[in-house]
Amino acid sequence: MINVPTLILDVEKCKFNIAAMAEKARKSNVIFRPHFKTHQSHTIGNYFREEGVTCITVSSLEMAHYFAVDNWKDITVAFPVNTLEIDSINTLATGISLNMLVESTETLANLSAKLTASIGVFIKIDIGFHRTGVAPENIELITSILEEIDNSEHITFRGFLGHAGHSYAAKSIDEVSAIHNESISIIVKIKEQFIDRYPDLIASVGDTPTCSLMNDFSIVDEIRPGNFVFYDLSQVSIGSCTVKQIAMAVACPVVSIHKERNEIIIYGGGVHLSKERIKHPKYGVIYGQVLGDDGVGWGDLLDKVYVSKLSQEHGTIRAPNEFIDSVAVGDLIKILPVHSCMTANLLKNYMTTDGQML
Amino acid sequence: MINVPTLILDVEKCKFNIAAMAEKARKSNVIFRPHFKTHQSHTIGNYFREEGVTCITVSSLEMAHYFAVDNWKDITVAFPVNTLEIDSINTLATGISLNMLVESTETLANLSAKLTASIGVFIKIDIGFHRTGVAPENIELITSILEEIDNSEHITFRGFLGHAGHSYAAKSIDEVSAIHNESISIIVKIKEQFIDRYPDLIASVGDTPTCSLMNDFSIVDEIRPGNFVFYDLSQVSIGSCTVKQIAMAVACPVVSIHKERNEIIIYGGGVHLSKERIKHPKYGVIYGQVLGDDGVGWGDLLDKVYVSKLSQEHGTIRAPNEFIDSVAVGDLIKILPVHSCMTANLLKNYMTTDGQML
Repeated sequence: MINVPTLILDVEKCKFNIAAMAEKARKSNVIFRPHFKTHQSHTIGNYFREEGVTCITVSSLEMAHYFAVDNWKDITVAFPVNTLEIDSINTLATGISLNMLVESTETLANLSAKLTASIGVFIKIDIGFHRTGVAPENIELITSILEEIDNSEHITFRGFLGHAGHSYAAKSIDEVSAIHNESISIIVKIKEQFIDRYPDLIASVGDTPTCSLMNDFSIVDEIRPGNFVFYDLSQVSIGSCTVKQIAMAVACPVVSIHKERNEIIIYGGGVHLSKERIKHPKYGVIYGQVLGDDGVGWGDLLDKVYVSKLSQEHGTIRAPNEFIDSVAVGDLIKILPVHSCMTANLLKNYMTTDGQML
Repeated sequence: MINVPTLILDVEKCKFNIAAMAEKARKSNVIFRPHFKTHQSHTIGNYFREEGVTCITVSSLEMAHYFAVDNWKDITVAFPVNTLEIDSINTLATGISLNMLVESTETLANLSAKLTASIGVFIKIDIGFHRTGVAPENIELITSILEEIDNSEHITFRGFLGHAGHSYAAKSIDEVSAIHNESISIIVKIKEQFIDRYPDLIASVGDTPTCSLMNDFSIVDEIRPGNFVFYDLSQVSIGSCTVKQIAMAVACPVVSIHKERNEIIIYGGGVHLSKERIKHPKYGVIYGQVLGDDGVGWGDLLDKVYVSKLSQEHGTIRAPNEFIDSVAVGDLIKILPVHSCMTANLLKNYMTTDGQML
């Protein structure tokens, strides 16, 4: 029985999302290395195994350890290598095939000096997001890093990796398509300059918006989407998925009703949903939207019913009178989150729609 | 040694903040019932014991359990009672003096029917924040709730409780002062109407801005501030504290430097700092500001150096060239959080400035 804010997983939707992305990767004949930071769950990891997935992406060494324990043997930490964690890197690298990201000769030299086990590295390329990565025109720096790699005892070059994170700010398929074409062309152009010297090099891309909306990835070698395993309202607003594809909701107890101002207060705040927000075209800034309850799984998104404010533990839902009249203190309300990765990271435990804990 | 994002506590500042607030409560001759949701730590709880504190506030039954285990015997859960957690309430109430908040006759009747142990209740009054609580002019509802309480076997009336959470949106001492005067006068007026019938009733208020900036609380009976134990940039922007009073920072490893766009990338994202944001008068929306390092504890806030973006694990710091030139990959950068409660909830473990884990 649910009595506190609880992450609900629709296993069927989740497996459907995984199967669809795995099929897309197979059709494009690219490696499917899904990002597991979204779910951080051994059980959900196993759903990927059912689709033949053997290699994964994570965003911290802590997550890499968590999945290595569950027998994942090929892990890319898609984050600029944090050399302060060298002990953790050396431990992990003795047991699994571990790939790290580098983007400077200093970091590579530092890493090279301290490694006692073998790792692979991708050179991170800035394919347009401008968060991390080597500028694609800086061939001199790429060449210097490659020289350092070639001179290193424990480091093998794996390829070039980019993340078109700016696709998250897109508002239409056309925008996603433009970002996809440009970012892919950047990384492919670099690949072409180095493929003769490194015939096995991998060009790796793949965020959820482009991987959901584009069909052909055959020009690259690997895709790494993560969020698609659950999707969320941010992805709906981009156009990456429909509401029906969202596989995760948060069930929250109603604790107070204030019809005089069209508000319901739920037990469910920033420590459960996260303070991630989006600007809804009709409702302004929102922190989640509310689902009708069809008894099994969840129903449709309700019109004009949304999370308008979040405190640490309280959530405020704005709703029309008809909805408020249908709700009582002690009911549960199901909320679709703005950003499923952040919500899953906070709540951690999953309950399936038939009441089983994962 | 710090190698991942780590919460740093300046114990001296923290104890100073606690002592100052305890002294203020003593001078006003009011009960000091600090809100422990900010720190959620047994050790920091003990700092309050050193100041004679014996009763506390929390925002969930889970937190109440956590502190009950550490021998706190008088706890108010300052959240509209979630009747779905009745088993937890009954368990707790057998061991400690437990106070809950009610604001409707329905909830009270529900609670009354299911209680097997004795609790106290405060009637939550909306003193201006308009999140929860009975409207102060609704004396009819207050009277009905009191009747239900008087007829209940296990429930004792404790008093009226309000939270002037709108003080968090204040931008000056004058605004805080106006909110304080108005909210206090609302709750005192209600108290006066019921004091003859309930001579022991308590009027309880107290958010961090009003409790920090106002001096005399003798007109009420109890204050419950929480955030002041650490303070943060939100409180600085209100004027509740100075930067020097902020007792918590997050040390984050530098993982990448992009001087060409005046950016440093740290290991430290939304899962560490939270996505809480404020609008800075000069920098726009920020997620934290950076401290100079004076070797012991922390130095001054650096000019024009702030967290401009957060992803799940990455933080982006904008900084002038001079600062960027002084930083190398592998350095640690100390960040003052926007909202310390949310940051502490995410990171959970505290390291003192001399390297001890609490």
